[in-house]
Amino acid sequence: MPSKNFENRQWFYVKRPAARVGPEHYELRETTLNGELSANEVIVRARYISVDPYMRIQQHERNTYDVPHPLGIVQRAGTVGQVMASASERFREGDWVLGYNGWQLFDKCHANDLQKLDPDAAPVSTALGVLGMPGRTAWFGLMEAGRPRPGDTLVVSGAAGAVGSLVAQFGKRAGCRVVGIAGGAAKCRYLIDTLGLDGAVDYRAFSDTQTLAEDLANEIQRQTGGVDVYFDNVGGVITDAVIPLIKLRARIIICGTISQYDGGLDHPDLAPRFLQHMLFKRASIQGILARDFTQRMDEMRAVVEPWVKAKEIVFEETFVDGFEQLPEALNMLFEGRNLGKLLVRV
Amino acid sequence: MPSKNFENRQWFYVKRPAARVGPEHYELRETTLNGELSANEVIVRARYISVDPYMRIQQHERNTYDVPHPLGIVQRAGTVGQVMASASERFREGDWVLGYNGWQLFDKCHANDLQKLDPDAAPVSTALGVLGMPGRTAWFGLMEAGRPRPGDTLVVSGAAGAVGSLVAQFGKRAGCRVVGIAGGAAKCRYLIDTLGLDGAVDYRAFSDTQTLAEDLANEIQRQTGGVDVYFDNVGGVITDAVIPLIKLRARIIICGTISQYDGGLDHPDLAPRFLQHMLFKRASIQGILARDFTQRMDEMRAVVEPWVKAKEIVFEETFVDGFEQLPEALNMLFEGRNLGKLLVRV
Repeated sequence: MPSKNFENRQWFYVKRPAARVGPEHYELRETTLNGELSANEVIVRARYISVDPYMRIQQHERNTYDVPHPLGIVQRAGTVGQVMASASERFREGDWVLGYNGWQLFDKCHANDLQKLDPDAAPVSTALGVLGMPGRTAWFGLMEAGRPRPGDTLVVSGAAGAVGSLVAQFGKRAGCRVVGIAGGAAKCRYLIDTLGLDGAVDYRAFSDTQTLAEDLANEIQRQTGGVDVYFDNVGGVITDAVIPLIKLRARIIICGTISQYDGGLDHPDLAPRFLQHMLFKRASIQGILARDFTQRMDEMRAVVEPWVKAKEIVFEETFVDGFEQLPEALNMLFEGRNLGKLLVRV
Repeated sequence: MPSKNFENRQWFYVKRPAARVGPEHYELRETTLNGELSANEVIVRARYISVDPYMRIQQHERNTYDVPHPLGIVQRAGTVGQVMASASERFREGDWVLGYNGWQLFDKCHANDLQKLDPDAAPVSTALGVLGMPGRTAWFGLMEAGRPRPGDTLVVSGAAGAVGSLVAQFGKRAGCRVVGIAGGAAKCRYLIDTLGLDGAVDYRAFSDTQTLAEDLANEIQRQTGGVDVYFDNVGGVITDAVIPLIKLRARIIICGTISQYDGGLDHPDLAPRFLQHMLFKRASIQGILARDFTQRMDEMRAVVEPWVKAKEIVFEETFVDGFEQLPEALNMLFEGRNLGKLLVRV
């Protein structure tokens, strides 16, 4: 039987952004994917394509946690899709799979690079969110590096985002008092009303950039009385404000510094020194990445999947429709236009 | 028998320094100590009085790890002295003791606040150095927070100081490659020739303050190839230079930030943001203070005292003679005029 070819669409990463990333750094190409399969190859049709803040990290000029994302190739990304053709015994046409197939409609890959999803166990899109990389980051970041104890005050920056919204809820379940920081009144209402947090701080409510760190610090101090665990997705001025508020033996988890991703990793800006607070409070900072816990997914799923099934946890998803929207959707992350996990439905 | 009184000399802390601390912030007073003793009281005559960088921390306006040192009282300090009179069964005249008796020749205190020293076990002054607070800081800071492994590259700032010189040697004994940072060619020779370190970086060799962090970073990188453990006594530009050089899962121990003690704790200066490096390398920062390990002195002594007895470790002491020299001796710490532990002999 002659193999069928696939009319493909692909977003190529073609230009390094100096500041905010957007459509001008990508090129949409229409190509044809040869449908011939070698042993164990599979062709996947993407249904949900991920946009994540880490993508912008990899677009910096210098090495970060990896070498820079090469120019001239399809943007790498996590994807959930369906098998269209398979030369693997493990996959059949129609199977839902999680892969790292990038910003393209079709991809041919080795069966070992795919993970089968059970659509009856949880919505398949959660494999890119609460039951995927962001969930793993939130779970192990908080539980291992944060070591939350009942009664602790947990502050989460980026609290309405994919990772932050989960950290905040995991913190509540661990018995913490949780205060989230987010941008805008609507998000802050969401933190209180939907996620059930104990407090919310709208960093956009403080318009004087000269006194922003101080104003923020005063408000966070007012709402918390001091911070035992700070889960940081954001960095920058928000972190400047939180660190002086830490309590004895506080744990600070650096999960992201999204405020610095518009070029600030190549050319860091200046901020007040703060290591003295680590000394005074004998506090710790721990940087974490999702990849450190890839081998422990089962541990996380064993705890979190029942919460997802029972709808005991809010796993908000913001969907953008249309393959052509991918670069703009990535941009949305840096403008904070998402609640929870941002996905492009294609 | 009528009790004997003691003609005392005391250094009162009378004025908060705005920058460098010196004699103008102290007042020398001659007083008389009433020799009458209540039950369990002891009168101690100081022989060695300590000057330590932490004293300057406590002179900041804001709370640091403690409330500020009060004005108008005798400067608090660790002391080694001899018992002159005792109403305690535990102490006899002539006994050597460790106490926290402050900058004064004589003090009357409760027997519970003294610890008997055995002059045959080790030179009594070591109770303020290698077998005392600085030794404890170095030992637990490195071994617990630093978790050194054979083959690790350990960088120590303030490497010729009381704590740093011990950390460096403990690191060698733990199988690390150790590079010390110190000010001046003489100290750097000492690090190599006397302490046996693998490398030394003289931060004073770089005179261009505009490029100091970069020049230092280049030199440290050249000598280390990357840093697994950074034991920081100094902070400031030296730390700015080291942090971007950390390797995967590096451990940074914040034991002091002496470069910032001339008022910088109240009014922190600006420095390049660096938390992204914690993320990239999944590295950790841990603040430590000697007091966290007070209850574990025996553990440290069990390991280190035999090294001291066998002279397998260099426990350099710089002595300044004369009670009236105390404020100036404290100042010396901030000018780096000491090798190892600085003590005033009185």
